[in-house]
Amino acid sequence: MKAEIITIGDEILYGQTIDTNSAWLGKQLHAMGIEVREILSISDRRESILEALKRAASRADLILTTGGLGPTSDDITKKTLAEYFGVGLKRNKAVEEEVKALFRRWNREASPANLAQAELPENCEALSNKLGTAPGMLFKEKGKVFVSMPGVPHEMRAIFQNELAPRLRKLWKLPAIRHYFVMTAGMGESHIASLLRDFEEKLPQNVGLAYLPSLGMVKLRLTARGENGEELDAFLESLGNELAALLTDIVFYSGRDEKMSISKAVGQLLLERKARLATAESCTGGKIAADITAIPGASHYFEGSVVAYSNRVKMKVLGVRPETLEKHGAVSEETVREMAEGVCKLLATDYAIAVSGIAGPGGGSPQKPVGTVWTAIASPAGVRTKLLHLGGGRREIIQLTSNLALNLLRRSILQNEPGK
Amino acid sequence: MKAEIITIGDEILYGQTIDTNSAWLGKQLHAMGIEVREILSISDRRESILEALKRAASRADLILTTGGLGPTSDDITKKTLAEYFGVGLKRNKAVEEEVKALFRRWNREASPANLAQAELPENCEALSNKLGTAPGMLFKEKGKVFVSMPGVPHEMRAIFQNELAPRLRKLWKLPAIRHYFVMTAGMGESHIASLLRDFEEKLPQNVGLAYLPSLGMVKLRLTARGENGEELDAFLESLGNELAALLTDIVFYSGRDEKMSISKAVGQLLLERKARLATAESCTGGKIAADITAIPGASHYFEGSVVAYSNRVKMKVLGVRPETLEKHGAVSEETVREMAEGVCKLLATDYAIAVSGIAGPGGGSPQKPVGTVWTAIASPAGVRTKLLHLGGGRREIIQLTSNLALNLLRRSILQNEPGK
Repeated sequence: MKAEIITIGDEILYGQTIDTNSAWLGKQLHAMGIEVREILSISDRRESILEALKRAASRADLILTTGGLGPTSDDITKKTLAEYFGVGLKRNKAVEEEVKALFRRWNREASPANLAQAELPENCEALSNKLGTAPGMLFKEKGKVFVSMPGVPHEMRAIFQNELAPRLRKLWKLPAIRHYFVMTAGMGESHIASLLRDFEEKLPQNVGLAYLPSLGMVKLRLTARGENGEELDAFLESLGNELAALLTDIVFYSGRDEKMSISKAVGQLLLERKARLATAESCTGGKIAADITAIPGASHYFEGSVVAYSNRVKMKVLGVRPETLEKHGAVSEETVREMAEGVCKLLATDYAIAVSGIAGPGGGSPQKPVGTVWTAIASPAGVRTKLLHLGGGRREIIQLTSNLALNLLRRSILQNEPGK
Repeated sequence: MKAEIITIGDEILYGQTIDTNSAWLGKQLHAMGIEVREILSISDRRESILEALKRAASRADLILTTGGLGPTSDDITKKTLAEYFGVGLKRNKAVEEEVKALFRRWNREASPANLAQAELPENCEALSNKLGTAPGMLFKEKGKVFVSMPGVPHEMRAIFQNELAPRLRKLWKLPAIRHYFVMTAGMGESHIASLLRDFEEKLPQNVGLAYLPSLGMVKLRLTARGENGEELDAFLESLGNELAALLTDIVFYSGRDEKMSISKAVGQLLLERKARLATAESCTGGKIAADITAIPGASHYFEGSVVAYSNRVKMKVLGVRPETLEKHGAVSEETVREMAEGVCKLLATDYAIAVSGIAGPGGGSPQKPVGTVWTAIASPAGVRTKLLHLGGGRREIIQLTSNLALNLLRRSILQNEPGK
């Protein structure tokens, strides 16, 4: 099956809006086994829309349009679709009721312009929009399927997932698609790929493995296609466990939650152990604490942080000895060790992360270039330190430090447990 | 002048990559007075590329392509362009030297595949790429201009701005375009618009005003078109000053730096006054400190932070009195006041920001719902407090708190000065 996506609206052509809808749709369709041939952005003009529909219909089985369905006069997609199919508009009672219900929920009165959203081309099937007033519309003509959806991303996504995708699966007997994620930290993509060479070669035809790298992390995504979704889930879980076992301690998560992060994974470990955490941060300037507290419920395991941006704070609040700073400098193993010990003691926590480094762009030297970062993890078993050499700009060095330090903490928590 | 943009690459159609290039180009071209008729994304296939070029050339004056210029075999844009124009490839000596120079800078040897990037269609003018190995290419045929640029965003942008835009301006005598920014914090877009109604009505035809809102901030962008760039700059500066005067103390920056942020503006104020800052953060969990230290050179005015996520840290490190917490709670005027005083004293700074609030999704109550945030600014003149009621999810509440607290600090710094 081949699809083409048409995005309607001047705001895309002027660059006021980035077209994220098409990328999202492309990903969904690709995963369903539908090939996207072309993505086209055009203006809100009748001739442009008619020409684009005609051209797409000459080549694709599925023609998806987004945008141009608002209640104002510059939104002409609906009437142009009616013109394309040579039909009139007709009030759809079910849609009218949905629009009224939406306005009741918003405690507002639906205007005639709002209710006119229920006037649909006679030959279409309405796709319910629970989040806005413009329904999706599905048309069938000469074996082709045309679909028009609103351009508001969350409305479009909900209509696609809840209304359109099930209809397409049924209509074209499309396979079920399932994903499983194994998330890693602290090892590069090519190194991981070399460890997984045999695993990848043995993967059955209906399973794919994707590497999705970000700063200091690689997310591995297993995707399977087949007839039975539940069977695929079970099969992917066993494959995922096999994969995770090959990568041992770089894996911080395996499961179905695409949004899992290292700070969330660390939070769960701490929560399970009723352990508490503090951070002492120099070069990250509070970013590690901010990443930890971005997770709801962090107060159950996070005590607080001392951002010791100056040497004075390192000494006065964290108790780093002046001799240490004088002899070894702020970016040194000895300093981060004392920072970690100091914050652990001050905030009375089980674990602490301490970092001190050079985030740049200034402040580097031949001995300690920009990207040099010392990290320390304090745990009930003592303090471990590690030197990192990081690349990238200031923003990347700060985020990499946070990700890698959280991963070091994760490993330290697990290493402290007997039998692990 | 009319343009069409063609993006070449399967990764866009599969939704692996969001096409930000087209939106950026659309914005640039629109600002130059060139109308973008269509944006098309196609696959890396010879027939698709040839068909798209032919179609675009039948309607536009400027045909821009991005992508498909890498050194690997699936990158076929260059040879397909040569086929389209019916010419061969020829080694371009200047481009070859640029590629070699790039590899010298990277301390690596250019491979034959890298050097083959200097083989260009005979009829093209090379557009220098200082950031990568694939040059841009400009072709003229029958009054139309065709341009091919690499898909890597920063390479494409540099080629467009430094090489292509000046050539197009000269070729088509396009107007000069200049921008000027007035950035505000702490007032909503519609309120600002009501204050600027008369100002907007008086704006000359060649000047536009855009409102670009983000969390707690509105960036106002004045854009002028004309023949002489320097005259436009001077005119915009006087208009910008007039605009800023109408908005008085909500303005934290006016000038040409599109990337100015509230944390950078506050940093400059502190630097000029040789004053030092600390933060005491509860609900923001280190985000204010992280925003401050995201700016290079923050160590010149930022001392550090105490992230007091637990009440114990508020008492033990910041010296908040147990009675205060017991009587008024952690989210109260009294608590943030003592937090601000405590951190100012502990870290011996001139200024301090303290915040305590409920970022959600849990933890709210009828008296103190999610989004309730108390802020305090300590300054040499004493402590001022302010209660905020913020909307949005956890992430938005944290970022809004940071932006608005930094703006309160900015106003406090200026209010402390005699004669202001």
